[in-house]
Amino acid sequence: MADYHKMWEGLGMDLATHDQLCAALPPAFEQVFLTQKDRPQGMDYFNMVIAEVHGLRIQELLEHKARGGKIIGSFCIYVPEEIVLALGGIMVGLCAGSEFWVPAGEQVLPRSLCPLIKAGIGAKVSRTCPYFQSVDLVVGENTCDGKKKAWEVLGDIAPTYVMDLPNTKSSAGFALFRRSMADLVAKLEEVTGNRLTFDGLLSAIETVDRKRAVLQRLYETRKAPKVPISGLDMLLASQVAFYDDADRFVSQATALAEECEERIKTGKAIFPGGTKRLLVTGTPIVVPNWKVHKIIETSGAVVVVEENCTGTRYFESRVDKSGASTVEELVDAISHRYFDRIHCACFTPNEGRADDVVRLASEYGADGVVGLNLSFCTTYQVENEKLRKRLQSEGIPFLALETDYASGDEGQLRTRIEAFVESLGR
Amino acid sequence: MADYHKMWEGLGMDLATHDQLCAALPPAFEQVFLTQKDRPQGMDYFNMVIAEVHGLRIQELLEHKARGGKIIGSFCIYVPEEIVLALGGIMVGLCAGSEFWVPAGEQVLPRSLCPLIKAGIGAKVSRTCPYFQSVDLVVGENTCDGKKKAWEVLGDIAPTYVMDLPNTKSSAGFALFRRSMADLVAKLEEVTGNRLTFDGLLSAIETVDRKRAVLQRLYETRKAPKVPISGLDMLLASQVAFYDDADRFVSQATALAEECEERIKTGKAIFPGGTKRLLVTGTPIVVPNWKVHKIIETSGAVVVVEENCTGTRYFESRVDKSGASTVEELVDAISHRYFDRIHCACFTPNEGRADDVVRLASEYGADGVVGLNLSFCTTYQVENEKLRKRLQSEGIPFLALETDYASGDEGQLRTRIEAFVESLGR
Repeated sequence: MADYHKMWEGLGMDLATHDQLCAALPPAFEQVFLTQKDRPQGMDYFNMVIAEVHGLRIQELLEHKARGGKIIGSFCIYVPEEIVLALGGIMVGLCAGSEFWVPAGEQVLPRSLCPLIKAGIGAKVSRTCPYFQSVDLVVGENTCDGKKKAWEVLGDIAPTYVMDLPNTKSSAGFALFRRSMADLVAKLEEVTGNRLTFDGLLSAIETVDRKRAVLQRLYETRKAPKVPISGLDMLLASQVAFYDDADRFVSQATALAEECEERIKTGKAIFPGGTKRLLVTGTPIVVPNWKVHKIIETSGAVVVVEENCTGTRYFESRVDKSGASTVEELVDAISHRYFDRIHCACFTPNEGRADDVVRLASEYGADGVVGLNLSFCTTYQVENEKLRKRLQSEGIPFLALETDYASGDEGQLRTRIEAFVESLGR
Repeated sequence: MADYHKMWEGLGMDLATHDQLCAALPPAFEQVFLTQKDRPQGMDYFNMVIAEVHGLRIQELLEHKARGGKIIGSFCIYVPEEIVLALGGIMVGLCAGSEFWVPAGEQVLPRSLCPLIKAGIGAKVSRTCPYFQSVDLVVGENTCDGKKKAWEVLGDIAPTYVMDLPNTKSSAGFALFRRSMADLVAKLEEVTGNRLTFDGLLSAIETVDRKRAVLQRLYETRKAPKVPISGLDMLLASQVAFYDDADRFVSQATALAEECEERIKTGKAIFPGGTKRLLVTGTPIVVPNWKVHKIIETSGAVVVVEENCTGTRYFESRVDKSGASTVEELVDAISHRYFDRIHCACFTPNEGRADDVVRLASEYGADGVVGLNLSFCTTYQVENEKLRKRLQSEGIPFLALETDYASGDEGQLRTRIEAFVESLGR
């Protein structure tokens, strides 16, 4: 790997602390991923992206900036990537997945807050996230109390814009969401210095939809009785979608999908017969948070689908641009895709999510559902009660887990997961 | 006290468990309130109301129902009492202030949730709150993640309607709020069988404003160098405002205010010289949550003002009905009063609250500010960081406390409060 210290220094990073992070990641990655058997060869590319996630990709972003392009950071799939792309920007997911950043977050936030938010703010406070140091704007959103109020704190230390969201999927809620979308367009036009055009936005929609389509194609292969790819590897590929260049991602993910499809044809099994198939639903799982997938897949089960913001919610629906002939109509179509089709627990009621879980469990042949929520994520934790009842009425076994980024609970999680897998019988 | 068991039985209550609650309250009340010295005689009425809070007042509500009136329960001061009253309803605050109800709440809600929500839902689950058993409708509101999602759970066991709220005080936010107000009017008209009239609504606005005015008058007396009433007693009187008949409350609170004004004239001191004056800001303090006020007022300080939803936020602003000549215009005026003037941490940004704290600290001559938040109340806890910075820049000492309804942390709270009071020096 090249030496990026000069680049990081130029970004105002805390090099000594960041070096500790860089030293910790490779052995963790090796232990989680490289110990798996029969990984698809197509995963080599995704291994490389993670290895270079603070290096080569940052270098590319800085080259983009040098050409006058802008970098927009986000923590949420309600922030419309199409619009950023259409304005010549690149959207990146910000650092938020490691315990490494939590203590710095706790300097300015309460401890009883979800680790994703604490890690996100902590990554900026500690100046150890090169994405945070590179962005021209962070687009936050009012999806939960923790984030909504954390943006007020972040606003003092990073260029922050907040996209307002409503609490219900009512007509008044959509009116507010559509207005927020218009306000965001205006803000991004100002930051990028570009104007949205019909052709530009149409092309950006098509680019992002290609990314969604290839993720859907990859996920389809997990429906096979003999799954051709582990949940861990699929999780990694999905996570990379939030960082990588869109076109390159599509090309590499397509190659991986072809390899998985070939495996299905040849009947290659990578998990032993009797391995239980699990659907994971809940809060987002971002790099390098691979903890629970690792435990599940070393406890006699395989994750076949993730109903969360880094899984199906991100890619299952497309922008319905048929009939749109103006920029405004395209923005309408984008707004409807995000508002109508993503079922986040930030909305009340949120029956669409339970419907999705039941449908996906059937489509992917899941033997059980794991509700995997980050600690202190109030919306998802309270929603569990309704979800549990719904799954019970459908006869689908359910295990609710709550965890953070620390490793202290791994033994306890393993015990509960093993017991759950065993209870699935056979 | 009369025997109300027959009435409670008719309400479908769990009598045995409720008896335990009834047995626990009087000694707790006595220990907290009756051990105070030189209480105003006017407090006798408020003592009586608390003693009869599950008895006489419920009997009155049931008489109201027998006459065809409706009872509307609420947990939040954004729910407009004027409209309930104008439609011949009575609005009551629901049980939510005791540890007694928390375990039942935790049967259906996560433990990492604020005690107010857990107690509220637990009071219904355990059938030990006669208010919950009497209401024709609970009007919830989307002010925080916990409540927003808890209404979904409550909806299965109680008649629940949710008032949608936005997350920002923007023009789009107001449009949504105004729409929610119209929807609530329609719902309440349906439930009560009555229609809003101009004269009825005007009269209800005047009634509620009289209640607010007398609370303001009472609070004014706490600005005196020698405070005529303890923070505990004032807290009790404020809490009663959420349960009592409005006109009777105004009359009794007026008598208490006159007594306090007389004390100021005669220079009567109820706390020794050198007692520190504290402003308490944060989350609501509902019956029978008197814990921190008690500790403060037995640690060398007196609470002179509460900037919270059971304090100044409830009564400081009035409905500006000047110029309104239709029902719609009155509802506009009500909407603006609630939306523009109440500064809840559920909104982002919420600078108005910090402005209020600074202003009130000056008006009431506070030596320091106590930020008193219920555990797991994310919005207020995260907002503390901004508030702390603001108070620091104003040179106002600040102590942030986080607590629940259990008594386990009383020793620790006392240690921290005593140290804070001592630090305020001379």
